[in-house]
Amino acid sequence: MFEKPLGMIDTLPALYERAREVRRYMEQETKSWGYRPIQTPSLEYYETVGNASAIRDEQLFKLLDREGQTLVLRPDMTAPIARVISSSMKEEPLPLRLSYCNALYRAQQHEGGRRAEFDQFGVELVGDDSMYADGEMLALLTSNLRASGLSPFRLAVGHIKYMNALFEEIIGDSDIAEELRRYLYEKNFVGYRQRVDRLEIAEADKSRLHQLQSLRGGPEILDRAKTLAHSSKAHQAINDLEELWGILQDLGVQDVIQIDLNLVGQIDYYTGIVFEGYGGPLGFPLASGGRYDELLEKFGRPASATGFGIRLDRLLEALNHINEGYLQKRPTLILFNKDHQQEALQEANRRRNVGEAIVMQNIESVPDIDAFREKYAEILSLTGESERGKHDE
Amino acid sequence: MFEKPLGMIDTLPALYERAREVRRYMEQETKSWGYRPIQTPSLEYYETVGNASAIRDEQLFKLLDREGQTLVLRPDMTAPIARVISSSMKEEPLPLRLSYCNALYRAQQHEGGRRAEFDQFGVELVGDDSMYADGEMLALLTSNLRASGLSPFRLAVGHIKYMNALFEEIIGDSDIAEELRRYLYEKNFVGYRQRVDRLEIAEADKSRLHQLQSLRGGPEILDRAKTLAHSSKAHQAINDLEELWGILQDLGVQDVIQIDLNLVGQIDYYTGIVFEGYGGPLGFPLASGGRYDELLEKFGRPASATGFGIRLDRLLEALNHINEGYLQKRPTLILFNKDHQQEALQEANRRRNVGEAIVMQNIESVPDIDAFREKYAEILSLTGESERGKHDE
Repeated sequence: MFEKPLGMIDTLPALYERAREVRRYMEQETKSWGYRPIQTPSLEYYETVGNASAIRDEQLFKLLDREGQTLVLRPDMTAPIARVISSSMKEEPLPLRLSYCNALYRAQQHEGGRRAEFDQFGVELVGDDSMYADGEMLALLTSNLRASGLSPFRLAVGHIKYMNALFEEIIGDSDIAEELRRYLYEKNFVGYRQRVDRLEIAEADKSRLHQLQSLRGGPEILDRAKTLAHSSKAHQAINDLEELWGILQDLGVQDVIQIDLNLVGQIDYYTGIVFEGYGGPLGFPLASGGRYDELLEKFGRPASATGFGIRLDRLLEALNHINEGYLQKRPTLILFNKDHQQEALQEANRRRNVGEAIVMQNIESVPDIDAFREKYAEILSLTGESERGKHDE
Repeated sequence: MFEKPLGMIDTLPALYERAREVRRYMEQETKSWGYRPIQTPSLEYYETVGNASAIRDEQLFKLLDREGQTLVLRPDMTAPIARVISSSMKEEPLPLRLSYCNALYRAQQHEGGRRAEFDQFGVELVGDDSMYADGEMLALLTSNLRASGLSPFRLAVGHIKYMNALFEEIIGDSDIAEELRRYLYEKNFVGYRQRVDRLEIAEADKSRLHQLQSLRGGPEILDRAKTLAHSSKAHQAINDLEELWGILQDLGVQDVIQIDLNLVGQIDYYTGIVFEGYGGPLGFPLASGGRYDELLEKFGRPASATGFGIRLDRLLEALNHINEGYLQKRPTLILFNKDHQQEALQEANRRRNVGEAIVMQNIESVPDIDAFREKYAEILSLTGESERGKHDE
């Protein structure tokens, strides 16, 4: 009778109030950057949005509508927003800045595993292909994480075109490159190393593929990256990162940012700069994003695009670890009986008007008064003499 | 490519920002009454929550999970909250005050019809069977609608036990009573009248059933209601309403409230006081609620309960009609080029810090600058002399 489907959870008041507060801080911050919020439906046609999503098919929740068409619970927000930009917002000039905060759905396979529904707060900047737009993403993500109270946190930034160019010049075969990308996507670095060792290529080239893994750190690694790859595509990607680094310095956010040329983001989705955010004790990213310049044309309005999403559940987990002392202010309880209802009401109104949270409770309706009183830090009894006495005990 | 499933809609920025604002006002108000927010998952087991819901089976969105069990997209919040109160919150003493703001899902049959997904803001007060609790619901609903900016609005209040007692003493047959209740639930008053006329009962009794429809107005109708029905059950219901009216006067909300003894709420769900809220030009209620003392025992924790839900889409529709002059403040645009990036950034930061919404846009990335500029009321160009000139045109 009390079971919930796999990966589905209840959020109880203490955590939910905190989540609501954090969400508000970020919405406020994002609004001050001129991003406008939109909301799309939970159900979309599989043909329209399910197909364009970066999420694997077996993670989609599917159902049939009355006409036998397949619907999906939205697995991400990027495809629905691309649909909106290409339809009801098609007259809006680019660049377009949008934000959202919505539940996403991804079916899970195992008990005790990941969440199948989680809230994601995110933004999309569509129609600006400059490095400044990528910089704005990283600066806005930084501002949002700061607004949430998370400290410390760090962002890792990579460029998918560098990795792709390196694989192309060393391996050529795109299936093997895909395989290697998948190991990096899964952060299975041992698997990556072993797969590289099994490749039938020169030892020097194996060494270059191994060295990719050391390309993590400050802007000083960019020179090393240029010597490791020789193609102009790879060098262009590094030039992008150099330009981006300058912008990040101008934006004043370089302190929280590391370059990591092993970042993949999602398989076959991003087309340029990719990034992830980490904070607290979590081993997995609480935010991720990047440039995806090829999605919008699937919806008939070709445009460059970049964006990020913050998983609220993971952000809250990181925040709870950092602020263990954080306590919700509990409401004040005004207990009354029939004879003192007016007096209680006036007191409650007076306090609510100055922002205090007040529970008014008729004492005659409380089945276990001692257990009930325990939940409140401050109690005011307006129930006649004997109850007043009780309150003072 | 741009189609959405039946009854599913996108909410674009102007409306969504307004919805978010209204939601915040109501969350703030409800928090000041000591209600704590919770969130439950979108998917529940049909066996658990789908069955306990007051929503008709054909309105449920159903899907199968991996084990072949039927899941439903939650059609209302009352059953999920009853599940939580009886499981993870079972140690919390009663009375318990909870609030929520969640999407609900109800499959629709026709094009151009009702929404299949909508946000509902609501509260539940569990474990207080006194008339004061019913009064608190009506006062809190009034406070929330006032906080939303809706004016004027009115609440209609009835008592399902009065109607049931009247039908029982005149008709007896519970199937016919159910049929009459359904006409009233659908507000099909012509249908009700015709069905009454076809009953094989004395003309005087038909007249009494017709007179039920005139039992709408101030507390003066309560005396008439007592003469129309004779059973002690009916009189007890009227006594409840008399007591409630006194409490509503004490709470200072009687001005917005009318008594309406034809209110049903949901079929076979409510067990006492029921109410609906109307505002603006809408022909259907934007809020509804009432007492449901029999649901919680289905989840193993028998307790009285009352609550209400406000449909945000309908509230917004009513508000938009009332405040036609309401305009979203548009962000300010700072256009810059590479040479003026630092200057632009400093200006943006300064203004964002005092709460202004600022879009920073590198002018070199804008495909159609005239169309883009049109979307902003205030524009600051930091792109060198000639652009400054343009701004002043």
